[in-house]
This record gives sequence, C-alpha cells and structure tokens, in this order.
Amino acid sequence: MTEYSEILLDVADGVATVTLNRPDRLNAFTTTMLRELVAAFDATDADDDVRVVLVTGAGRGFCAGADLARGGSTFDATDETRAAERTDFETVGGVPRDGGGIVSLRIAASLKPVIVAVNGPAVGVGATMILPADIRLAAESARFGFVFARRGLVPEAASSWFLPRVVGISKAMEWVATGRVFPAAEALAGGLVSQVVPDAELLATARSIAAEIVENTSAVSVALSRRMLWSMLGASTPWEAHGVDSGAIFRLGQAPDAVEGVTSFLEKRPPKFPGRVGDYVDVVPAWPTRPADMP
Amino acid sequence: MTEYSEILLDVADGVATVTLNRPDRLNAFTTTMLRELVAAFDATDADDDVRVVLVTGAGRGFCAGADLARGGSTFDATDETRAAERTDFETVGGVPRDGGGIVSLRIAASLKPVIVAVNGPAVGVGATMILPADIRLAAESARFGFVFARRGLVPEAASSWFLPRVVGISKAMEWVATGRVFPAAEALAGGLVSQVVPDAELLATARSIAAEIVENTSAVSVALSRRMLWSMLGASTPWEAHGVDSGAIFRLGQAPDAVEGVTSFLEKRPPKFPGRVGDYVDVVPAWPTRPADMP
Amino acid sequence: MTEYSEILLDVADGVATVTLNRPDRLNAFTTTMLRELVAAFDATDADDDVRVVLVTGAGRGFCAGADLARGGSTFDATDETRAAERTDFETVGGVPRDGGGIVSLRIAASLKPVIVAVNGPAVGVGATMILPADIRLAAESARFGFVFARRGLVPEAASSWFLPRVVGISKAMEWVATGRVFPAAEALAGGLVSQVVPDAELLATARSIAAEIVENTSAVSVALSRRMLWSMLGASTPWEAHGVDSGAIFRLGQAPDAVEGVTSFLEKRPPKFPGRVGDYVDVVPAWPTRPADMP
Repeated sequence: MTEYSEILLDVADGVATVTLNRPDRLNAFTTTMLRELVAAFDATDADDDVRVVLVTGAGRGFCAGADLARGGSTFDATDETRAAERTDFETVGGVPRDGGGIVSLRIAASLKPVIVAVNGPAVGVGATMILPADIRLAAESARFGFVFARRGLVPEAASSWFLPRVVGISKAMEWVATGRVFPAAEALAGGLVSQVVPDAELLATARSIAAEIVENTSAVSVALSRRMLWSMLGASTPWEAHGVDSGAIFRLGQAPDAVEGVTSFLEKRPPKFPGRVGDYVDVVPAWPTRPADMP
Repeated sequence: MTEYSEILLDVADGVATVTLNRPDRLNAFTTTMLRELVAAFDATDADDDVRVVLVTGAGRGFCAGADLARGGSTFDATDETRAAERTDFETVGGVPRDGGGIVSLRIAASLKPVIVAVNGPAVGVGATMILPADIRLAAESARFGFVFARRGLVPEAASSWFLPRVVGISKAMEWVATGRVFPAAEALAGGLVSQVVPDAELLATARSIAAEIVENTSAVSVALSRRMLWSMLGASTPWEAHGVDSGAIFRLGQAPDAVEGVTSFLEKRPPKFPGRVGDYVDVVPAWPTRPADMP
Repeated sequence: MTEYSEILLDVADGVATVTLNRPDRLNAFTTTMLRELVAAFDATDADDDVRVVLVTGAGRGFCAGADLARGGSTFDATDETRAAERTDFETVGGVPRDGGGIVSLRIAASLKPVIVAVNGPAVGVGATMILPADIRLAAESARFGFVFARRGLVPEAASSWFLPRVVGISKAMEWVATGRVFPAAEALAGGLVSQVVPDAELLATARSIAAEIVENTSAVSVALSRRMLWSMLGASTPWEAHGVDSGAIFRLGQAPDAVEGVTSFLEKRPPKFPGRVGDYVDVVPAWPTRPADMP
C-alpha cells in the first residue's frame, strides 16, 4: 500500500479510517495532503474489503483550512514555489485547479459511503471537504467556518454546489456571507451535521453507524446507491432516475445478492452477501474522479 | 368506473381515497396493484369532481414492499412467469421498467394534489411510492424503511431523484446506506412526514387538510401549481419559471376563477370557483404519465 | 439619485435600506413599486459603498400582495388601462411578463447580499418577492401566505423555482395547495425565515447581521460568492462549480483582498479590504437582471 506522510489509512472490520495527520498544525491542508487523500480514496475504492470510509483528524483539530505558512501570498497560484510543485494532475489546460475541489470531487465519486467525524475545528477547506460525505458527525468541541469572505476569497472545493444541497440555500448564504465561525450546536441546527456527541464518544458513534452498514447491507447495493443518489441531484427529471434504476434493478434482480437478501430476510437470519463491488461498477454511470475527466 | 381488485377507489366530498387493499399481505406490492394504481390516477385526473387524492392502506400495514411470495427469484425479471405477465406498458424498447417507478412517476404527474396517510409499515416500494406525494402524514404505529441495500438491490421508483429532494441528500444517504427500518418519530425529524398523529386520528387529519384545499382554492390553480412546482425542481434557472408563470398569470388573470377569487376575498365570503381543470391543462406543460413517453 | 415615490432608499454604514412605502395600503404592490424596486437594486449594485441591502416595509405591513383596487379585473393584463401603462421593459416579444417575477429575478441577481425583515403581513407577491433574499427574519406579528390558489391564480415571481429550493418541495406544496395564511412561528418551523424576534427588535437584529458582514468580510468575496451559490443551484454537476471556483480562486488569490484577509487574520486584527466589487464582476458569470436578457 502507498506510504502516506500527512494522513493515516487504516483498514479494520470493513472500515477504512482516514486520519488527517498534521496535528501540530491542526491538520492544515497542503498539496501533499491533497494528493494523499486522492490516493487514499483510490485505494478504498479498489479494495473490496473496504465497506465504509471514516474520515477524522488527529489531535485536537479536524482541519484548520489551508496552511497559511506562506502568509499573504498563500493563495497566489503564480507564486513560483507553488507553481513549480503543481503537477499535471492539478491543472486542466494549463489552468490550476483548486486543490480542495480535487479532493471534494474525489470524495463525491467514492464507491464506498463516507462518514466524517469532526473532532475539532473544521474551517475553510476543512469545512468544505466534508460536504460530499454521506454522514457528518461532530464532537461537542467541533466548530465550523466557511470563512472565505473573511480572507478575500470565495467558497472553494465546489462548495457553491454542495453546501446549498446539504443545508439549503438560505443557511448556506448566511454562513458564506458572514464567514462566521460557529459551534457544533449551530451546525446541528442548520443541518450540517446529523449528530453532536461528547468528544470521547465521537469515533465509537461513527464506527457504530459504519457497523450498521457493514453487517446488514450488500456492498454492491450501497456502492451503486451512492452513485445514483448523488448523480441524480443534478438530474432535471425523475425519469432519468427511472431509466437508471430500471436497468440496475433488472441486472441486480438476477444476481446472487438479491437472492441472498430476500432469502435471509425470509429466514430471519443475517445476510451473507457474496457480491463484490468491482464486478458491478458498470451497472450505474460513474462520476469522474479527476479534474481532467470533468467536462 | 374500472373494477379494482387490489385497491379501493372511493370519491366523496371532492376527495378520492385510494386504499391499498391486500390487508392479509400488509398490502404488499404486485403487478396488479401497479396497474390499478396507474388506472386510479388516470381516473382521478379525468374526474373534475376530484380535488384531492388521499392514499392509505387497509388493515394494519401501509405497504410492506414487493410481495416476496416467489422467494429468492422475486426480483428476477427474466423469470418466465414474470416475463409472461408483463405488458408493453411496462417495457420500453423491450427492456422491463421498474414497476415502482411506473407508479411513482404516475403519481408525480397527478393533476390533483396527493396526501398520503401512512397507517403502518411502509417499506421498500411502500416507502418510495409516497415520495411524489405533496403531503405525507404518519400514524404513530407507522414505520419506514428504504431497505434495498439489505435485499441486494438499489433504491427504485425513481427514489434516487425524489428522496434527496424531499429530505436532503444527507438524510437520504443515511437511510439508503443503512437500509434501516425506522419509526414515525425519525421520519418526522428527518422531514419524510410533516406530522405524526395517533393512529385513530390519521384519516381525520388527512381529510381535514384535504377539506382545507377543497373549500378554499381553485381546482385549476392547484392543478397548475402542482405541475409548476414539481417540474421546476429540475429547472436550471428561475427565469424558466418566470417564463411559465408569466404565461399562466396572463391566461388565468383573464379567467373567471381570478375574478371570483378577488371578488370573494373583497366581499369576505367563501369563493365558488367555476373553472374546471380539464379546460386549462394546456396552460402549463405536463409531465408524462407513461414510461414510453419519458425521453 | 433617483426619486422614489412608493419606496424609500437610505444608505448608511454600508447598508442600503429599501422600505416598501405605501403604509396606508399595507404596501400593496403596484407597477410603480415594481419599477422602483428594480431601480433601487440597480443603484445598490452600482454603489460600491453599499455592502448589504435590507428590505422591510413601512407601517404595520410588509406587503399585502397586489393592490386589488381594480377588483375582479386586477389580474386581467388585457385591461386597457393596464396594458397602456406597461413598458417594453415588462414585455418580451410582446407578451407581458409577470411583475413580481421581474422584481424577484432582479433581487436574485443582486451583487450585494439581501436581508429581508418581514415586519407584518407578507402575502402573495409580498411572500414571493422575499424568496431570492439570502436571509429572512420575521417579527412576531408577521404572517405569510402563498394565497394564489385562493385567488384563482398560480404562484408567480418565479416562486415555483425559488420556494421549493428555500423550504423543500413538501412544505412548498402544502403552502401553495392550501393557500393558507400562517403565522411567523409556522414560517420558522418550515424554514421560510431563520429567526422570529419581537417586533421592536426586528430592524436592530437585521442591522446586526448586516454589520457582521460589513465589518468582517471582503465586498468582492461576498458579491462573487452570492453569484456562485445561487447560480450553482441549477448546475447539474459539482464540477461546474469546480471550474468556476478554480478560476475565481486563481484570480482572487493574487488580489489585494486575499493578502489583507490572510495578513489581518495572522495579525489578529480586523481586516480593511481595499477591493471594490465593480473591478471584479467579470470573475464569475452574472445572472441577467432584465427579462429581455433571460433566454
């Protein structure tokens, strides 16, 4: 497996835990972290033993946003040091792509459901990279900030698309226009997270939800469902969904997982699904994982 | 009127009550029920005396999902018995269409507003067919489950489109990825239903909302409004809505219902709207009612 | 500055307060008010000293809807008096455009964030014109009604697009199908407003939120963010947002506001952003402000 320097990747019990791991910098985001997160999601997609991805932060922060070590020139992409470290992967037609967006869109395309456990401050790209996750939990000490307008920037990481779909346009505009940093309770009230739990219970709560998925569901079903729901957010009509799901039900209805699913239910026993995600990825159209493939 | 064997259709006081009627099977969904539901919505659309459609279930269940009497091969559309019973109506270009979707899309295209009174378990297609309704109420004993991933399937009935629009992408993904069966209180908290009432009060509550519509509003207005709001969910820009509503206001502003609406308001008396829906269906573009007409 | 007869426009402390000003008619909407509102938003967009627009009503109402002084023929656009007073501005290809929509779409295209303080009844166009605002607050005595179906009409002001995006399709359909007039508490529970405050505290609360924006954020950032979030509501995919925000971050990252934003943050002092909105309007595509420019 790839060596990582700014994240940790650990797989156990069907759950891949991705830990942002620059605790002395509150896990501030860097180009290295960007590349390692993309590699980690490539790895979890390719590994049929991974059923759920759990993202959290090491130490007392989740992710404090972009690392500001370069001061006022932090966001100047024409800065020579920064331009030199960019790869083809991060430009399209010579134009630099926003790094947070590369991560968010990779997470959005994940075959495995993503749970984020926000263990402390999640600010800037730390707040926007969690939006394409499926389930977001916060520790009581978490706080959030879409602070871009306070830094002279605009929301990145494709959050202008994701945030209004997660919390509604009104709450999104309020948080973006004020740039306010707000506590976990406000995130819960606004729908940004589904639960707030004591800090000491955060990971156990996240793992409990992951286990609910691992133990009861078909990996194939969950992977394809995730693609369907996220991609249909952008569909003009419900009959686009009807076309996709008719095809998927036709194919999956003949497959071993459906036989096991119905049989185990009728026999009132836990299911043991034989299907492997890799064999069914063609059933539902995929979202691209790289900027170069995004038209 | 059509004879029905697995549903009941009863019209009184401007309200058509559609009752799923296989109480010994918790109203499990069948191909016959599919066809009868489509026929019932064709009938309620064509009957200008029907102002509201109320859908509920007979006995202690709402709809337990697909009837699993065929066991492990339930969802195998290549099964000879099942293939033989399919009609042109349920295939497009020779490919079988998901039956739940045929129902959901027919409900979505209803000219009359739809209230669902969930009187008991609503699972699988029983949970997804309620999504294109306008108002969903639950009895305290109702429970819900988007259980597809527990059966080796994916969400059907175009619910990958409807569910995120009704409850948001995060709650939708949580319910779909876990496949969890959950109580009425969780449905209320998640926005799947707007009220939970004691079982004995369910139908009276639904009828009270229906009466509020029947007594106060123009049938033409409600039918066209329903088309506008649902179809604009998929519009890229608000000026598409401006085009449609400018045309509709221009036309309706000259019609007798607008005269009666303003006059009755100024005279502080209940309105008596003369307009009939059938005379105004061209004012706003319709959604198709049959898979064959869905591009 | 333009002379206004049915609204007031007052600029102070970076906040432009637009007051609907026909208090003897509960600020009922007229063609004059339409034109003055459009002119006011043209003025606030053009004035770099305006950071936030605050909309409220004079007297005890916010806006009671269309002025019904013409009785049953109020909405008949073929009425000779009304046809004569229409300008090219309000027709496209000879067809009259809905006046509420002209206002709503002008507000939607505002470069400055819009806060609405609903001080009393907001009914009909009074309820729909507030939807393209970013933040909506209500006084305890406010009430709301999407009453179109009770007048023989349909929702106007492009509200078939805006309302489901602000409150969700289910609540939208319930309010539209019943045409019910409802109190501030129901508006809060349904997500139509974010706060309900005592009448005497309404304007102070609105101004406090405006001040939070004025004092802490870059005008350029907020203007471009607003365009991004609203326009991405209609985008099919998140990579459309990624394209736009990559370009915007690239450009703004080199600009003085980003330098000041990061520097002031690192120096733990309030920012003083030098950027002026007018110099950056090309960074993010604009929404049209006039019906004639809406394809």
